[in-house]
Amino acid sequence: MTSAIPKEYGVQNGVNGLHNLSEPNEQQSHGELFLTEAFKVIVEEAVRKGTDVNEKVCEWQEPEQLRALLDLELREHGESHKQLLQRVRDVAKYSVKTNHPRFFNQLFAGVDYHALTGRLLTETLNTSQYTYEVAPVFVLMEDVVLQKLRSLLGWNEGDGIFCPGGSISNMCAMNVARYWAFPQVKTQGLWALPRLAIFTSQESHYSTKKAAAFLGIGIDNIYHVKVNESGCMIPEDLEAKIVLAKSQGAVPFYVNATSGTTVQGAFDPLERIADISERNGMWMHVDAAWGGSVLLSQKHRHLVSGIERANSVTWNPHKMMMAGLQCSVFLLRDTTNLLMRCHCANATYLFQQDKFYDISLDTGDKSIQCGRKVDCLKLWLMWKAEGSQGLAERVEKAFAHTSALVEEMKKREGFQLVSEPQFVNVCFWYIPPSLRGKENNADYQDRLAKVAPTIKERMVKQGTMMLGYQPLEGRVNFFRMVILNPQLTKRDMIFFLDEIERLGKDL
Amino acid sequence: MTSAIPKEYGVQNGVNGLHNLSEPNEQQSHGELFLTEAFKVIVEEAVRKGTDVNEKVCEWQEPEQLRALLDLELREHGESHKQLLQRVRDVAKYSVKTNHPRFFNQLFAGVDYHALTGRLLTETLNTSQYTYEVAPVFVLMEDVVLQKLRSLLGWNEGDGIFCPGGSISNMCAMNVARYWAFPQVKTQGLWALPRLAIFTSQESHYSTKKAAAFLGIGIDNIYHVKVNESGCMIPEDLEAKIVLAKSQGAVPFYVNATSGTTVQGAFDPLERIADISERNGMWMHVDAAWGGSVLLSQKHRHLVSGIERANSVTWNPHKMMMAGLQCSVFLLRDTTNLLMRCHCANATYLFQQDKFYDISLDTGDKSIQCGRKVDCLKLWLMWKAEGSQGLAERVEKAFAHTSALVEEMKKREGFQLVSEPQFVNVCFWYIPPSLRGKENNADYQDRLAKVAPTIKERMVKQGTMMLGYQPLEGRVNFFRMVILNPQLTKRDMIFFLDEIERLGKDL
Repeated sequence: MTSAIPKEYGVQNGVNGLHNLSEPNEQQSHGELFLTEAFKVIVEEAVRKGTDVNEKVCEWQEPEQLRALLDLELREHGESHKQLLQRVRDVAKYSVKTNHPRFFNQLFAGVDYHALTGRLLTETLNTSQYTYEVAPVFVLMEDVVLQKLRSLLGWNEGDGIFCPGGSISNMCAMNVARYWAFPQVKTQGLWALPRLAIFTSQESHYSTKKAAAFLGIGIDNIYHVKVNESGCMIPEDLEAKIVLAKSQGAVPFYVNATSGTTVQGAFDPLERIADISERNGMWMHVDAAWGGSVLLSQKHRHLVSGIERANSVTWNPHKMMMAGLQCSVFLLRDTTNLLMRCHCANATYLFQQDKFYDISLDTGDKSIQCGRKVDCLKLWLMWKAEGSQGLAERVEKAFAHTSALVEEMKKREGFQLVSEPQFVNVCFWYIPPSLRGKENNADYQDRLAKVAPTIKERMVKQGTMMLGYQPLEGRVNFFRMVILNPQLTKRDMIFFLDEIERLGKDL
Repeated sequence: MTSAIPKEYGVQNGVNGLHNLSEPNEQQSHGELFLTEAFKVIVEEAVRKGTDVNEKVCEWQEPEQLRALLDLELREHGESHKQLLQRVRDVAKYSVKTNHPRFFNQLFAGVDYHALTGRLLTETLNTSQYTYEVAPVFVLMEDVVLQKLRSLLGWNEGDGIFCPGGSISNMCAMNVARYWAFPQVKTQGLWALPRLAIFTSQESHYSTKKAAAFLGIGIDNIYHVKVNESGCMIPEDLEAKIVLAKSQGAVPFYVNATSGTTVQGAFDPLERIADISERNGMWMHVDAAWGGSVLLSQKHRHLVSGIERANSVTWNPHKMMMAGLQCSVFLLRDTTNLLMRCHCANATYLFQQDKFYDISLDTGDKSIQCGRKVDCLKLWLMWKAEGSQGLAERVEKAFAHTSALVEEMKKREGFQLVSEPQFVNVCFWYIPPSLRGKENNADYQDRLAKVAPTIKERMVKQGTMMLGYQPLEGRVNFFRMVILNPQLTKRDMIFFLDEIERLGKDL
């Protein structure tokens, strides 16, 4: 079918004289060879060594030293195949091994091999999740995955979308709630509205602050509701804060409840909060980014009972479900296309109305993004591999490890719980021998506050394990241990306790 | 070092009776085997076939049919190794091959093998770009890459961050500009401010609308500036719109100029816009998501001259640079830590102040996200492989292909340009034989409007190539061909023209 190619086609001056428009710039076979060899390095360094308890969790280097080791500068000329393979190896070597069984530092950890496969395929296919035309498989798949997640919430209908992380999911919730209460905001902005008030607990995630600032509502218009010792919102204080906001002339429109707080892993009392939200005509959002995964387990889902009464939910399967960063969903109970109406901008170059297929499949305009990564495949493939039962088993095992660890901790003199865990966050102080029994000394709290940072420094420099610490609401620095990796065994748990003791015994 | 493991440790009831806490849930060796075998399938289906001109660009299926073929439902029990491998194969098979040399549908296309390697490594390492502690390599790398991109803009200093896509980069620009003009907005919200006015061209990207709505400013407070025939902002009209806004009591604070519009690939006159912005004390943002890559070429960078006068710039290396979705940077000229001050929320559990290293390396609080994907590695590794020169050559070759194609188009009767290309977007109508010379018929425009959708349907159903179409500002549906893939040869270009003719000759 191809015409004869005109001789004069494409005679142009390039950087190096004439462009040869008859040949591609690079040989595909060279590219494929590099990819294949590099994959072997990745498996060796980041997968095999990265999950081996006999290898370090991290290879600590001072920033200046690391900068020199990596030779980061970008230059005029490219490097050889061999040099580039070495770069792949170096990047892996000096990166923290979050797949490692002794990485307890964040609310994600470990590797699921099927999810990882889904991620590699996603990257290779390199498409954007906006239209059926360009992402047919993923448009259908996203729909099925969202439906499945909603059904776990107890919703037969509803809406939703994958977002780049829980903070943005929470922002979308606040924006949709605002539009639901005051649709004119989309066109006229906040000047057309009374001052709005937002409610969230003192121990809720900082994304509520970021959202209030970004959406133009302002951080001062957040009313922080008190929590009990375990970090759960006190409903009576929510009611009091709503009364306060109204008395100050603000309009309460949004309450953010948390299922699984970041530090203590606390679950807010959703039924009570739902009663209050309904009574006050407010949108109830549940930030279940961390705790949502308890829905997978019949045994533990009672922690979020009442979640079905929420208007919207954030849930991050990249956390406890191990789908890989990033995988966050924003789910809505709404059936009136509120999400689309709130976010759409109807770009004619992307969402043409005269397509030859059902354009309700072009879901991209529900998003605040234009190009949007495919985040459903990794979760879908993992679910196909594990089944709901396999995923439930992981959640239950993490709870089982947590209670076993806590029991063991209580037997050891140096460990003091901050609160009884509700979830798989174990918050504790390590009291070194020199501080035991000195609770009444004037400098006790100051000295205790320095213990966790010092142990942390030692552990990172030795690379034996990683976990986080923080102060919280008047409590000095304590450790937060997070248990979620299905590769964990009791050996790792005992190692963990022994290692804290080893690193802290002289403090 | 490990203590004896207490016998009673972890005796718990699970889904299937007792949890065995002595063993991991899954065998790592099984997982690794699956990953390795699946990688072979990915290379075969998505890389090799996905880039082969003898294979289809897409395997069109009606949604219902595709749903049935894929068996998307998520069930109670997991599937076998073999079934799961078949799923990987099917997902690849029915996905659009954006790596294919005949995919011209979006502002991204093709595959860079080194960037893809960087992406696979990123996914495998699975870390979040918030602290040096958990992403030491990537914190340093992001800094170097941002510096390099800024230096191409002509900035020796400045700030920046990778964002999940150009729309969010543009939103960040608007938010930072607002905070720069009115810092009280962060705490008090927009009620503390006069009504704000935003300026952007009629042909600018729809993310300005999404941003104005999301940030609570309101779409009605966008003043759309007129463009010339090629789609470039008319500076005189910008001045007129600023006067208009002021006369309506609004405060002009933000102008969004575009370098490389989505449809026509137009470049706004930045010097003139900078003069006007400065005179009016406004923040000037350049949305160079698409066109920024001309900065790589000495020959073509004049298209963005004046960009160094902007306050901020969005640039998406996932577009013309082929770094892979998503790779978008938001760059600022500011040296006063404005980005951090605007976005920070100071979470104590993440950004501890008593760390043992320089906490200025914990850049995560500059972002509106909490967890943030690593987007620098793919760009960095590609740059190391190609060098600045190799990247420049790609840009110049794309321009060379574009002018050669346009010359050839002018020789063929059925092709009519919408405007002379400034960039690598070629916008044109295909006039089928039956419509030639009928420009004055009453139904000409209506009939012409139907040509592109029909050709598009035929091409997708046959899978021979993909390109987009749209109406624009009173012009009926026309095609937008996008040239950027370095794998293209003149054979593909001639094929392209022949194929349009073949698909449309009977219309």
